Amino acid sequence: MTNKSKLSTESYKGVRDFYPEDMFVQNYIFNTWRKVVERFGYVEYSASILEPAELYKAKTGEEIVNEQTYTFTDRGNREVTLRPEMTPTVARLVAGRVHDLAFPLRWYSMPNLFRYEKPQRGRLREHWQLNVDLFGVENSEADAEIITIAYNIIKEFGAKDSDFVIKINSRKLINDLYARFELNEEQAHTVSKIIDKKDKISAETFEESLEKIIGDKASDFARVLSSSERLLESLGNNKNADELMGLIEKLDSAGIQNVIFSPTLMRGFDYYTGVVFEMFDTSPENNRSLFGGGRYDDLLDIFGAKKIPAVGFGWGDVTNKDFLESHGLLPKYKSSTDLYICTLDSSVNDYAQKLAETLRKDGLNVSVNLTDKKLGDQIKLADKQGIPFIICVGQDEIKSGLYKVKNMESGEEKTVKPEEIVKIISN
Amino acid sequence: MTNKSKLSTESYKGVRDFYPEDMFVQNYIFNTWRKVVERFGYVEYSASILEPAELYKAKTGEEIVNEQTYTFTDRGNREVTLRPEMTPTVARLVAGRVHDLAFPLRWYSMPNLFRYEKPQRGRLREHWQLNVDLFGVENSEADAEIITIAYNIIKEFGAKDSDFVIKINSRKLINDLYARFELNEEQAHTVSKIIDKKDKISAETFEESLEKIIGDKASDFARVLSSSERLLESLGNNKNADELMGLIEKLDSAGIQNVIFSPTLMRGFDYYTGVVFEMFDTSPENNRSLFGGGRYDDLLDIFGAKKIPAVGFGWGDVTNKDFLESHGLLPKYKSSTDLYICTLDSSVNDYAQKLAETLRKDGLNVSVNLTDKKLGDQIKLADKQGIPFIICVGQDEIKSGLYKVKNMESGEEKTVKPEEIVKIISN
Repeated sequence: MTNKSKLSTESYKGVRDFYPEDMFVQNYIFNTWRKVVERFGYVEYSASILEPAELYKAKTGEEIVNEQTYTFTDRGNREVTLRPEMTPTVARLVAGRVHDLAFPLRWYSMPNLFRYEKPQRGRLREHWQLNVDLFGVENSEADAEIITIAYNIIKEFGAKDSDFVIKINSRKLINDLYARFELNEEQAHTVSKIIDKKDKISAETFEESLEKIIGDKASDFARVLSSSERLLESLGNNKNADELMGLIEKLDSAGIQNVIFSPTLMRGFDYYTGVVFEMFDTSPENNRSLFGGGRYDDLLDIFGAKKIPAVGFGWGDVTNKDFLESHGLLPKYKSSTDLYICTLDSSVNDYAQKLAETLRKDGLNVSVNLTDKKLGDQIKLADKQGIPFIICVGQDEIKSGLYKVKNMESGEEKTVKPEEIVKIISN
Repeated sequence: MTNKSKLSTESYKGVRDFYPEDMFVQNYIFNTWRKVVERFGYVEYSASILEPAELYKAKTGEEIVNEQTYTFTDRGNREVTLRPEMTPTVARLVAGRVHDLAFPLRWYSMPNLFRYEKPQRGRLREHWQLNVDLFGVENSEADAEIITIAYNIIKEFGAKDSDFVIKINSRKLINDLYARFELNEEQAHTVSKIIDKKDKISAETFEESLEKIIGDKASDFARVLSSSERLLESLGNNKNADELMGLIEKLDSAGIQNVIFSPTLMRGFDYYTGVVFEMFDTSPENNRSLFGGGRYDDLLDIFGAKKIPAVGFGWGDVTNKDFLESHGLLPKYKSSTDLYICTLDSSVNDYAQKLAETLRKDGLNVSVNLTDKKLGDQIKLADKQGIPFIICVGQDEIKSGLYKVKNMESGEEKTVKPEEIVKIISN
């Protein structure tokens, strides 16, 4: 075969390669997510990353589909999108079997998602996201459970309460505000988008943008929205305010005390209908939200299915990892291999293999040297690969039936019979 | 919001949705793969499904890239492919850090792969594949280890030796045959493709196709290739034959006795350089290969990296599942949730939540009723969702401090204190 020009070893732009050390962190994050959500009775589902493009045109928002997704036409002339979020997919799955499924459903998934945008800190073209959804419960017990799960996840990672805040709001409450200011549907939709961007623009720009849509009501509107107290006062006796305050109290009495009512928290997606929430790292260098979610009671409507109330959240791996890093919570790499068996020469190969086989039956993960490397190099290799224990097999060991088990981190050595190796390593 | 036309709940063509019952099987397959390969000291890596299209043009074969992949141009004018196989990616990762990595490397991954082709039994547009590779060992101990792992996986799934055969061949041996018949490089390449298709065409068509390439040598060539005995006889004293026979003997003495030397086993990819192997289900309705692999010592060359000998295999989830199904080896669905707590009325909600919290701390996965469904409907729900145990909480239970734990499969009930619930469920 002729030599062509050499290929680059770089990955495609904005996506990541996971070498074993990276995969270790990734698996730590995935396993922690899985452990906590299953503890709350959630079961896993999944789907392909390929979805019909129509799925996103309905409610994700035209802007996202047109400018921020990977969408292409296949050879059968179908428009296909690499999913940018999981909620439309889970809604599709639920709607597809709405008459066979037993509700409430507690479902989770850990999909990878794609966004076609400029890569930056906390934001890549591909990321993984824990999605947790509860279908079929309309009351705020469901909202409380969903927020409690998110809280338990961040605590499971070792975070302190002071490391994060959970901002919360209610779309229903904001709709009541729109009604009080007599906004029509179109004005309300545009104003929502303006509020969503409030934190990224100045107070002046915010008011100016509002004024373009709602005229001289703008300054009064902005004032009411500027604090939760003013908003509540302005709405007076209000069912949706009571519901939101009740939820915050319920969380508080369950020990979740860093929840803040934030009237300007909107979340980008059009499909939210009730409570919305987002968790923020309190450390200023990491200002992206860690997770976000809310109630979306009408989404199944796009499939013509009966109404199923739903609440859920998404939690990204990239911001999760950034959070762990900036708070010193990342675990140190440890190989999934427990033991490396060094061999002194090839005459002991078969013996080393049989020993490995026995230890594997006892539950150890064992790697055996297959090379003619010198012993010192074999030990270095085990060390570099993060394998915590080694033993060496030579004619002496075969004759005596005794093996020196070395702990690579402490340097401690113990000479034992084969059947005792497992005990030393398991401790 | 106005009602648009209703969306379909179907997935994109040729890919699968994984409802919890499907995900259960998928996780059973993934966990079994993971358990066995880690037992042999392999560590996990991963990468994005998006790869530069050039990666596949070099050695995967032009036909596959042009006609069978999802390849599109992104807005930055880059040609991107959804990876159709993992080997080029792992070669890219190894080549990218060839000076930093400590060899030998034992690596595995469980990627999803995409092929743009007509969906059929055992073959979909998206499937998952276990990839296991050993980099840095040139001798056949490495080949033996790789085949041993595959054998251990199928046994771990509960297969009997009579359920499958492992076909094996050597590209080096076939190259020796080409040399003996004085084929030039181009002829050899084309003849390889013809041999690869032999099982799908008649003996006549096979000989006719050969004749077009190598003229009147064709019938002699076909005769030599028709059995392993004839091939070995024709090559006489041959190092590569000795190596292959030695490997088969080594596997045999390690208890792997259903290995068959098959001179016409080629495997499609161009990058194989030595031993190649494939596992076949012996049941006729499931004739796709279960796994396949081989040695590819020169692949890193496409990146201009130093030569690293390598051997590995890929094992697909779809054929794996078909195999389990046709041999009655699929496990029965069981929810990851251990216990469902029914509530008699909403006055006990807080109490039920506290009980759930305690049980979760003890390691149970617990779901709590949040609805006003009748007790009978709550029990039906737990049953339909495959949750193995239930308890009911009402005022009586709160007063007495005793709970009736019901095993949903056996119908057995035991009345116990809260701290004994874990013991009953764990048994």
